[in-house]
Amino acid sequence: MEYKYLPLIKSPDDVKKLDYDRLETLCGEIRNEIIETVSKNGGHLASNLGVVELTVALHRAFNSPNDAIIFDVGHQSYTHKLLTGRYDKFSTIRTENGISGFMRPDESEHDPIVTGHSSNSISAAYGIYRAKKINGEEGTAVAVIGDGALTGGMAFEGLNNAGRTRGNFIIVLNDNKMSISHNVGAMSRAFTKLRNRPYYHNVKFAVNRFLQKIPLIGRGIAALTFKIKKAFKRIVYKESIFESLGYNYLGPVDGHDIKAMENLFKIAERYTRPSVVHVVTTKGKGYAFAENKPKNYHGVSPFDVEVGTVESKKMTFSDVAGNTLLELAREDEKVCAITAAMTSGTGLSAFATEFRNRFFDVGIAEQHAVTFAAGLSKGGLIPFFAVYSSFLQRGFDQVIHDLAIADIPVKLLVDRAGIVGEDGESHQGVFDVSYLSMIPNMNIYSPCYYEELSETIKNVSKTNELCAVRYPRGCQSGEPPIDIKGDYTYINNGNKRAVITYGRLFSNVYEAVKDTDVSVIKLNKIYPLSEKVIEIISEYNEVYFYEEASKKGGIAEYVGEMLMEKSFGGSYKVFAIEQSFVPQLPVSVAFKKFGFDTDSIKKTLGV
Amino acid sequence: MEYKYLPLIKSPDDVKKLDYDRLETLCGEIRNEIIETVSKNGGHLASNLGVVELTVALHRAFNSPNDAIIFDVGHQSYTHKLLTGRYDKFSTIRTENGISGFMRPDESEHDPIVTGHSSNSISAAYGIYRAKKINGEEGTAVAVIGDGALTGGMAFEGLNNAGRTRGNFIIVLNDNKMSISHNVGAMSRAFTKLRNRPYYHNVKFAVNRFLQKIPLIGRGIAALTFKIKKAFKRIVYKESIFESLGYNYLGPVDGHDIKAMENLFKIAERYTRPSVVHVVTTKGKGYAFAENKPKNYHGVSPFDVEVGTVESKKMTFSDVAGNTLLELAREDEKVCAITAAMTSGTGLSAFATEFRNRFFDVGIAEQHAVTFAAGLSKGGLIPFFAVYSSFLQRGFDQVIHDLAIADIPVKLLVDRAGIVGEDGESHQGVFDVSYLSMIPNMNIYSPCYYEELSETIKNVSKTNELCAVRYPRGCQSGEPPIDIKGDYTYINNGNKRAVITYGRLFSNVYEAVKDTDVSVIKLNKIYPLSEKVIEIISEYNEVYFYEEASKKGGIAEYVGEMLMEKSFGGSYKVFAIEQSFVPQLPVSVAFKKFGFDTDSIKKTLGV
Repeated sequence: MEYKYLPLIKSPDDVKKLDYDRLETLCGEIRNEIIETVSKNGGHLASNLGVVELTVALHRAFNSPNDAIIFDVGHQSYTHKLLTGRYDKFSTIRTENGISGFMRPDESEHDPIVTGHSSNSISAAYGIYRAKKINGEEGTAVAVIGDGALTGGMAFEGLNNAGRTRGNFIIVLNDNKMSISHNVGAMSRAFTKLRNRPYYHNVKFAVNRFLQKIPLIGRGIAALTFKIKKAFKRIVYKESIFESLGYNYLGPVDGHDIKAMENLFKIAERYTRPSVVHVVTTKGKGYAFAENKPKNYHGVSPFDVEVGTVESKKMTFSDVAGNTLLELAREDEKVCAITAAMTSGTGLSAFATEFRNRFFDVGIAEQHAVTFAAGLSKGGLIPFFAVYSSFLQRGFDQVIHDLAIADIPVKLLVDRAGIVGEDGESHQGVFDVSYLSMIPNMNIYSPCYYEELSETIKNVSKTNELCAVRYPRGCQSGEPPIDIKGDYTYINNGNKRAVITYGRLFSNVYEAVKDTDVSVIKLNKIYPLSEKVIEIISEYNEVYFYEEASKKGGIAEYVGEMLMEKSFGGSYKVFAIEQSFVPQLPVSVAFKKFGFDTDSIKKTLGV
Repeated sequence: MEYKYLPLIKSPDDVKKLDYDRLETLCGEIRNEIIETVSKNGGHLASNLGVVELTVALHRAFNSPNDAIIFDVGHQSYTHKLLTGRYDKFSTIRTENGISGFMRPDESEHDPIVTGHSSNSISAAYGIYRAKKINGEEGTAVAVIGDGALTGGMAFEGLNNAGRTRGNFIIVLNDNKMSISHNVGAMSRAFTKLRNRPYYHNVKFAVNRFLQKIPLIGRGIAALTFKIKKAFKRIVYKESIFESLGYNYLGPVDGHDIKAMENLFKIAERYTRPSVVHVVTTKGKGYAFAENKPKNYHGVSPFDVEVGTVESKKMTFSDVAGNTLLELAREDEKVCAITAAMTSGTGLSAFATEFRNRFFDVGIAEQHAVTFAAGLSKGGLIPFFAVYSSFLQRGFDQVIHDLAIADIPVKLLVDRAGIVGEDGESHQGVFDVSYLSMIPNMNIYSPCYYEELSETIKNVSKTNELCAVRYPRGCQSGEPPIDIKGDYTYINNGNKRAVITYGRLFSNVYEAVKDTDVSVIKLNKIYPLSEKVIEIISEYNEVYFYEEASKKGGIAEYVGEMLMEKSFGGSYKVFAIEQSFVPQLPVSVAFKKFGFDTDSIKKTLGV
């Protein structure tokens, strides 16, 4: 497809110059560019196709970066990138040293904050807004937030705090009737109600005009008229949740009608109180496959544009975890599963279908999920909360306060643990070992293989302990080369040098040292460690620790300190992720960088 | 005061046996017992006095523990304790080995979960409720949550998720028109609106009766009547935020009228959908001092009942932090301060008065606070977020995601860091060193003295770095015995033995070793450490690390591992808080337990 307008858009100013006919063509080009690029690089598709017109309207009504525009989560910021001078680099999206699939301030002045985790846009935008007012600067701030992200409690905290401001702070509710899969909870029901009043805004104006025309004759009639007016207004306006929190509510408006949206945005800008503009969009718009099955086109791997995505037949760690839970649930009616809007991502689709009554999708609400699990456990059930490592960070306090203090035996299935690849800094699962191991009463497992994962999940389901089982994104690296069982596996190849490791790095370590005199201690239970493991390590002169996790607060540090206190006289060398965020890059490249691949391990050990 | 009924109450059943006259006497006795006990032991006063009748009504309408009742935060659970068999132990509240000032499951079957942190009650209660339904058990679950706690996003996540249940799950909104100080945000305004319809519930019933009496004659009229009914209902019912989330809204009801509350609770129990019962209580009720100044009687130290609490003239670390910020704000109009409903607790009252425009009380919303600070910083300001160590756990993901990834130079003032004493497990500030030091780009300071704290705050305000300055609850332990300046202070008493420490433990360490040959390295910047510090330590044969924080993930572990990797040949001994929660006990007693007091240090070092 030859682009007529897209290459000419160097900044939002250029978007303002086009008339509506040309904008329609531009939107077609943007959609094409997004589909083509995502089909090559992978990335978020349906969400981005849904907001093409919305983003165009935003950049016409507002003046970024003077007006700060924040796309919550950021997985729908591709059009924004294309309109803010990043068309040239767009083909590098989600690649090493390329542009990010989310907003990144170091990439453009049009990206005010880092996005990636859900529900933070209102808080950040409101902070920027208040700073502008304090500094006496012009401009406003706009948070664009999906109905899914709005189920996160943090969004509510922002709504609550910004609702009392006296100024034109703006929230755009991008309502596509689903979060990543489908939306849940009472809020979602409330939105449906609002949506079902499609001419709401027009009606509002019409009624106002009508009411203003009623003649006021005599005191009594005036009072009566006033009462009627008020009653009438109540009926027509029927307070939305946003109005009861102090916002103007504008909409719903068709999220693919640029002109209509522009108008509402400009109305919102003129108010002296905060507004919520309710925009209804269609996820996947313009690409039939995605429009029909937006769930399957949320985050995708490279695919053939003509054929659409093909469901991978390849088993993943998530599938194994989900299948194991399913098996457990069939045997024990106390087993239940919780997800925070990641049913499919955490491999729980089959569980959700078969055990509807014991499956809970609580929305993007990790805090609630953890404590809800505490309640289920208190009620005698065996709850598993399957959650991505980087998202469980949201439930950190709840794990400490609502699980660990009373030692509630909830099981955390920590998916996407370790390096995840193309999603970059915000999605790397490199902190969970540190933030979970510091919590008293916590037991952490990090299996390397499918069968080991499955066994571990089965074992922890039977214990009365608070447990976390962590496993990486994607597939296992080959079948176990040896018999793997229990909390640790000791491969004794002689007692001079030993490597200690856990999780999927074991397969690389094993591959590197299998024909050498280097011993291996493979941990499955990584915290707390038994005395026996420390004893074994203490017998070696040279110990190497390979850890696919943050070094600070990790297991290598913990072992190192113990060796130090035991006056271990040998040498100790750690390979882990030193204090830094891991950028977007393929896992294999990251492994090389940190010395985790087989070749690097061989080189380090000189074998 | 001689008690007539209170000593006879062994369980909630006994509360059910009394008539309303006797209950009135009982409530008087409960108030007296609470006032007397808190005046001796310290604790939460105003919140507990406010819910005496509410708690009595709950225990009459419901059957604890079969019906689970959870008091959010738990600082209003004293009456609950008195009614559930803990009258005998009540004098031990908040003392070593005594009963807790919050709910603790290991204390009574009537305490379903640990409470202490805000806004988790709905999630936990709903979990218990769902478990009951899955198990086919009788009974319901009730979350009692204050209007303050409802500003926490987690409560909203719970509201959202529980709102779609088909069953009699019950939320009691304890509306005392303030959180700890005064309530903030749009939600608070919405409640005021609801409160101003005092006969709401009665009116609702009356209207229903009236509407039911309208005769239905002929089709046309029936349709018209239906429309009128609907319109009428809308006007009278005016949807509350709870109704738009799917709840029955019952109330507001006088929170000191036992009978009226009992009735509403029983109505709620009969519904087949979830209810919110809006109860209006008076904080401090029945104790004139507390009723007039509930803010001053939230959490109190021991006081004279006749005189009331006396404002302490003693300076605290919080005061020093607050005053320093005030000073900075006077010099630099970019300096601003944020609190999550802890204005007075974090020493910010004067700042709030003098710089209203640059002071933000965001409600009990630590997540929002962190990211709002990111926005303010992005807007060119210098935001300080003053927050208790254990509450910052709620903002953990936001510190990683919204501050650290983009290296946003927000300043965290981490108050109540270290052991806090009588509030127990949920309030101990022993994890922040671990959970902050694992975050890339974070700089952590832990001064020992007022002047040092003040200097540190001033210094970090000038840096372009993300910083946390942590300091303990209460007062400094004497004036600095030596000149303290910079990131670390090295007292070289000879090069055989050295103690490394930070924070307030330095004063104990100094006292213990001042006339000996033991050297001291006192850290102010505790993370990251400069190479120089490690070099200094490496020169000693025996190194002792004293750390008033969790050992796992702490600084001692980090230093130990570094020494190990550097093949340090000496001995290394760590005194820190080993994997366990610190129970309620005076700080001095805890110090002895962990070997942190001067005598223990002397003994350990043999000096």
